[in-house]
Amino acid sequence: MKAAIQGIAGSFSHAAARALAGPAVEIVPCETFGDLFDAVVGGEAKIGVVPVENSLAGAVTENLDLLFEYDLHCVQEAYVRVELCVVAPPGVALADLRSAASHPVALRQCRRFFSEHPEIAPVAVYDTAGSIADLMAGQAAYHGAIGSRLAAELYEAEILRSGIEDDPRNFTRFFAVTALEGDQPLERPKTSLAFVTEHRPGALHDALGIMSRHGADLTRLESRPIPGSPWEYRFYVDFRSPDAGRLEACLDALRAATHDLRVFGSYAEAQPPLG
Amino acid sequence: MKAAIQGIAGSFSHAAARALAGPAVEIVPCETFGDLFDAVVGGEAKIGVVPVENSLAGAVTENLDLLFEYDLHCVQEAYVRVELCVVAPPGVALADLRSAASHPVALRQCRRFFSEHPEIAPVAVYDTAGSIADLMAGQAAYHGAIGSRLAAELYEAEILRSGIEDDPRNFTRFFAVTALEGDQPLERPKTSLAFVTEHRPGALHDALGIMSRHGADLTRLESRPIPGSPWEYRFYVDFRSPDAGRLEACLDALRAATHDLRVFGSYAEAQPPLG
Repeated sequence: MKAAIQGIAGSFSHAAARALAGPAVEIVPCETFGDLFDAVVGGEAKIGVVPVENSLAGAVTENLDLLFEYDLHCVQEAYVRVELCVVAPPGVALADLRSAASHPVALRQCRRFFSEHPEIAPVAVYDTAGSIADLMAGQAAYHGAIGSRLAAELYEAEILRSGIEDDPRNFTRFFAVTALEGDQPLERPKTSLAFVTEHRPGALHDALGIMSRHGADLTRLESRPIPGSPWEYRFYVDFRSPDAGRLEACLDALRAATHDLRVFGSYAEAQPPLG
Repeated sequence: MKAAIQGIAGSFSHAAARALAGPAVEIVPCETFGDLFDAVVGGEAKIGVVPVENSLAGAVTENLDLLFEYDLHCVQEAYVRVELCVVAPPGVALADLRSAASHPVALRQCRRFFSEHPEIAPVAVYDTAGSIADLMAGQAAYHGAIGSRLAAELYEAEILRSGIEDDPRNFTRFFAVTALEGDQPLERPKTSLAFVTEHRPGALHDALGIMSRHGADLTRLESRPIPGSPWEYRFYVDFRSPDAGRLEACLDALRAATHDLRVFGSYAEAQPPLG
């Protein structure tokens, strides 16, 4: 099974691809999330692995827009723990490190580690897995790198310390999206969709009332400015349904009461690693 | 007037401080958003300038958490356009540039510029204003930098091209937060608050119903995982009220129907630069 991911081998998206499609998954690395969606539409990959939400950073807003823009279907969800490891080439000890590279967001999540090791200078680079790949290829001006356990294994770096992120409650939720002929049967317990409400007081309340009356149990509600219409909002909703019949009736009623309703798909509910 | 900002002089937060407190504002640069809130609580700054939402990237989720955590009051809002300029020391022409540094997020917002100028290598650094400051201090290994017009002026860099961001509909919304003795009178037209609903189907619908019946016109609704309780959500709501009396009644009713209601403040409504 080929899975398109944003980033390179060893990224957290790669770990998600393994969780979604098994350890034998073959990844198709893409530079941008737009390229990822294109790879699935163009058939270069069977599924796309799309981060949609992080427990610390919130929604991956670019992907909410892309889900709306592309006609792909969400068929699965998975959670991946963002565990950060400081790594170096074999033989280098933690005490020898004078610099460690990663993406600025990952560096900021390791404040405690850097304050305990003032001799190690943080170095900003493009991505976490790339910092390890470049280090191990001998192409880097830094001595260590910070990224996933998977990247350390793939690039044969040594893990000097694992779990150096400040907050261990750091999880990312991913969707597997795929191209389907025709409509997807909506028979799985969890559904994701988006809609736009009329701009009048109470319009969102009315839409949520429809969902509530059809037994929908909201697990997430996200508002997102509509690209090209600053400060107008589209609502992204994830919810559980009691059964397929009530789900269909709910969608029919929602379609009549909102604009631009898009059902991304129904899928089995996954559990986050904690909580 | 002293205003705490995250980042250094010339950042977009500095531009927001000028919009909120006038061009003579004296900034107190802070390394983290937590430091910014501490500077206001500790009296080192009269106001804190807090980005809460970007038209492309969505909510600044860390600051939603901090607003909840600290007992400060939102007294003003402002919008700042994120215009990106490529700059260099005087005498350097665009044709001479072989590299340009900025924060990875800013670099990603200038894809068109870099594809039109394949001879210019993007270089990832910690922040936009810092890339210009370091360049002009002669401390950088890169030839150009990408940041705000304000940073170019402050550090006396030459703007080689302005408006190089791919999408000009790029605005950030900021709050001015301050420490107040006692309660803030809630008499301004726009109010921001947060609450947690019971975990049962329809609970959010009921809360929004209360707001709707009291004439509240929602301008924004954001859901945010509760730190320490992964995948449980707090809702952040901005809304207009018809008058102070109905606002007070609305807040009383909401307080009875939700948990952990926090009113961040009431303030005059600002208009985004476009739309």
